[in-house]
Amino acid sequence: MLKRAYPSFRSLAEKGELVRVAGAHDALGAVLAEQAGFDAVWSSSLEVSAARCLPDASVLTMTEYLDAAANMQKALGIPVIADCDTGYGNNLNVVHMVHEYEAAGITAVCMEDKLFPKLNSFASGDQTLLSTEGFCSKIRAAKDAQATEEFFVVARTEALINGLSVDVALERSHAYCDAGADAVLIHSKSKTKDQVEEFLSRWDGRRPVVIVPTTYPDWHVDDIAKAGVSVVIYANQGLRATVASLRETFESICRHGDSTNLEDRIAAVSDVFELQKLKEWQKLDA
Amino acid sequence: MLKRAYPSFRSLAEKGELVRVAGAHDALGAVLAEQAGFDAVWSSSLEVSAARCLPDASVLTMTEYLDAAANMQKALGIPVIADCDTGYGNNLNVVHMVHEYEAAGITAVCMEDKLFPKLNSFASGDQTLLSTEGFCSKIRAAKDAQATEEFFVVARTEALINGLSVDVALERSHAYCDAGADAVLIHSKSKTKDQVEEFLSRWDGRRPVVIVPTTYPDWHVDDIAKAGVSVVIYANQGLRATVASLRETFESICRHGDSTNLEDRIAAVSDVFELQKLKEWQKLDA
Amino acid sequence: MLKRAYPSFRSLAEKGELVRVAGAHDALGAVLAEQAGFDAVWSSSLEVSAARCLPDASVLTMTEYLDAAANMQKALGIPVIADCDTGYGNNLNVVHMVHEYEAAGITAVCMEDKLFPKLNSFASGDQTLLSTEGFCSKIRAAKDAQATEEFFVVARTEALINGLSVDVALERSHAYCDAGADAVLIHSKSKTKDQVEEFLSRWDGRRPVVIVPTTYPDWHVDDIAKAGVSVVIYANQGLRATVASLRETFESICRHGDSTNLEDRIAAVSDVFELQKLKEWQKLDA
Amino acid sequence: MLKRAYPSFRSLAEKGELVRVAGAHDALGAVLAEQAGFDAVWSSSLEVSAARCLPDASVLTMTEYLDAAANMQKALGIPVIADCDTGYGNNLNVVHMVHEYEAAGITAVCMEDKLFPKLNSFASGDQTLLSTEGFCSKIRAAKDAQATEEFFVVARTEALINGLSVDVALERSHAYCDAGADAVLIHSKSKTKDQVEEFLSRWDGRRPVVIVPTTYPDWHVDDIAKAGVSVVIYANQGLRATVASLRETFESICRHGDSTNLEDRIAAVSDVFELQKLKEWQKLDA
Repeated sequence: MLKRAYPSFRSLAEKGELVRVAGAHDALGAVLAEQAGFDAVWSSSLEVSAARCLPDASVLTMTEYLDAAANMQKALGIPVIADCDTGYGNNLNVVHMVHEYEAAGITAVCMEDKLFPKLNSFASGDQTLLSTEGFCSKIRAAKDAQATEEFFVVARTEALINGLSVDVALERSHAYCDAGADAVLIHSKSKTKDQVEEFLSRWDGRRPVVIVPTTYPDWHVDDIAKAGVSVVIYANQGLRATVASLRETFESICRHGDSTNLEDRIAAVSDVFELQKLKEWQKLDA
Repeated sequence: MLKRAYPSFRSLAEKGELVRVAGAHDALGAVLAEQAGFDAVWSSSLEVSAARCLPDASVLTMTEYLDAAANMQKALGIPVIADCDTGYGNNLNVVHMVHEYEAAGITAVCMEDKLFPKLNSFASGDQTLLSTEGFCSKIRAAKDAQATEEFFVVARTEALINGLSVDVALERSHAYCDAGADAVLIHSKSKTKDQVEEFLSRWDGRRPVVIVPTTYPDWHVDDIAKAGVSVVIYANQGLRATVASLRETFESICRHGDSTNLEDRIAAVSDVFELQKLKEWQKLDA
Repeated sequence: MLKRAYPSFRSLAEKGELVRVAGAHDALGAVLAEQAGFDAVWSSSLEVSAARCLPDASVLTMTEYLDAAANMQKALGIPVIADCDTGYGNNLNVVHMVHEYEAAGITAVCMEDKLFPKLNSFASGDQTLLSTEGFCSKIRAAKDAQATEEFFVVARTEALINGLSVDVALERSHAYCDAGADAVLIHSKSKTKDQVEEFLSRWDGRRPVVIVPTTYPDWHVDDIAKAGVSVVIYANQGLRATVASLRETFESICRHGDSTNLEDRIAAVSDVFELQKLKEWQKLDA
Repeated sequence: MLKRAYPSFRSLAEKGELVRVAGAHDALGAVLAEQAGFDAVWSSSLEVSAARCLPDASVLTMTEYLDAAANMQKALGIPVIADCDTGYGNNLNVVHMVHEYEAAGITAVCMEDKLFPKLNSFASGDQTLLSTEGFCSKIRAAKDAQATEEFFVVARTEALINGLSVDVALERSHAYCDAGADAVLIHSKSKTKDQVEEFLSRWDGRRPVVIVPTTYPDWHVDDIAKAGVSVVIYANQGLRATVASLRETFESICRHGDSTNLEDRIAAVSDVFELQKLKEWQKLDA
């Protein structure tokens, strides 16, 4: 069936079960995540900018991030949650962002409390935060701008990324919920889950919590759920696998002088056709 | 260095050495091909449409194919050769295509002699050819439309794809060269190199020949060169590797409940940063 | 209020009153049409291609026509009906077109029964029609592809444009309705309304009829309604006024050496700000 | 002739004659400006945002402004100078902007010394300037990023817009030239030319000066030249004429119930075809 339908992210978040999300940057990755069993897809700024070989530093525009997110959503039966960095500027940019993402069928966005232009959270460099009140104003602007009840706004605090304490992260997260955020994302680049675990243990549950276990990959999903997490995002493993795989593939062809030895390890052209739903499309012209 | 510079495809083709080209659909794949040692990048319609999970059947628009090609070219120090299907319609579309691709910095395009909308060459279905004269008219229109001498137009014959003989393929290719094509691409979906080899053995050398050894992957690059090929395109191995790798990665996370065991096999976040030239970009704000 | 809301085109068409539509090519023109009292906006291929100084001959892509239509819809409180030419190719292109337009919030599209690439109806040149069955197949494909009941597909016959008889136009229009079209558009480039009037007098009313009185501009809207028309499209008067006005304005500056004498005839910068809703946007950052 | 060729903006600026520029937001307006005799076209942020009915406040993205500028340039035989606001963020955004505009064939850009997101200069609200050193750093980054010698960077000071003195405007402009700017634009919203005249009388001529006589429209072009101006931009008169004309046209149709009385005042469809160069395009399919 070529018809397009997908649940809203809110409907998943309200089920009360852990929502497992995979990062992607194009429809192909997104569909493969869906096929593997993920519940939703994270349209990752790191991935989308990496696909362009440009830094994850607010260099690409909202137009480009939105195109990526919308193209993923169009191919999926599960919802996209869009990484929208800082909201691309001030309150006006945030409102425009909500208008555009919602009009494009995206049901959830995530904004973070850094300054525009932002820098990737794992990069060394300036990770200065916007004031709590400034970010609350953005959240209120976003929530006022949405046209439907369904639309879901995640407030992401980069307090820990900026070297601030769990206390600050909690304080900010509480304020963001009071400002109307539908969930909070607590980001950490610690090599262990300890910071995030402490945050969760002290969280009052007023809204769902989202985590991104990039630097603490060993936290099992069952334990994540038990710790009180509502949404877990495997944000960039697909991208990093792609880099390794492409590097190996291209080098193999150069080294061997032919592609024979790859044939068993790579998908068949017919697999690609299936991902493109070629046969279903061809039926239209019968 | 962040400055953008790259040779024209023509300058490579005129060197007299075999030009090795890898297919890609985004800047990331293109840059990894360049790093592995390829001389140029094929902006593949199969790859670009697969990245959108849409069929390779003239469903995506020229705008979308051009964006993909241009975004690759911007990230590269080697030239892109753009797979332009049928030229997206009639002579007017072809001329507009040349204007747009050349304005975007693309130095070589490839057009094929099928009808619009086309179907991927490896798919079963209608592979009807345009008349020889009709396609020659498109080639003349393309060559007249280019603004610079550098711009390079490859004429691709799908005669063998359509089940026609090597005789027909040769006849068409000769006509295409006479109409002004800068090179011919002889495409085959045979499981062996035999058809293409016969074509080459009977080719009069009036223009360079391009091949795409997807279904006959065991032909070694040195033998390809000896057979008289000027350009060899490994058109979709990167895409197919990506599919396999993403599938495995996403399934692994779902199966294991964490991503620990992937860490050794996938690129580090710092590798991604390097592909994004993050440090060089960060120097700009010092 | 910056929130975006608009009725579907279907809801207008089902009211039973004549729907008056103005052509436009950008949000500015569309909003001015809305402010003047029009019920809907025609995203005109002639206008959109003219805004690019490119021929109205399937040279621009669906992507570009969709962007224009979507950008208009986003600024409006009334629906857009999108001129989608031939559906941009075959049945696959039609289905993709419906997916894309509906996902972008467009509630009505119009497809015509010419061959791709098409030529503007008022231009001399090839106006060959697709077979009736071929176009019925496109209509069925479009109707099957829509995700919501609301989506509205207008089938436009170019029979009269192609010099065929009213008989043929009626026969085709009946078939198109039977294939599922929500309305038919009967186009004519006659200097009088006679052809269209004859069509209407013989129409059995099985679906609403749309007309475009470009070449017979003297038909009063009340008489149009009485003749049984459901939707009237003033398709390009805005564009043609813009051309005249810009020509005069630019020539005046060149001739006079200053722009003083224009000031009384052109809108004030503050009028532009109002069309941009600048004050409402500025409140967001208070 | 459909081939695309145009001189660089630098080649005009170096002729030593006053360069007369008209603002536009699409190819249609741009081509009409060219036909009227203008030397170049200003891709105006006010116009481009107004065409979307969105505020001129960094709400549209660089992608959208670039598309507008590039689409104009493609249709012209004269150069575009692109209004690039603040450079869309920090130094990284500026460098990316230069890469993208130059790759798209734009030969001149203008950056202003306000903070991102900026507000239109004629709007009341925050017009805070970036530090002189901060903006000089942007200029140096832009000049270092350009790939060709031709590329031309105009530094625009908003000192007078921000209520600062001519002294400050001069000081900043000198610094901008020392940082590498190819010209300076001195903007004023004064109802008279006095401020700008004072600036010019005290300017040391180290680089060309650009002015935008929107609020002092009575300054004759000959006197502008005598006062030492190198480039004069009639930035938005075309847009404002379009607004007036569309308003009148749409209201006329609604009021009269037909479009007959417009016919003499608006361009013919055949005029539109000429702007589209329809006949030249049609020759391609002969």
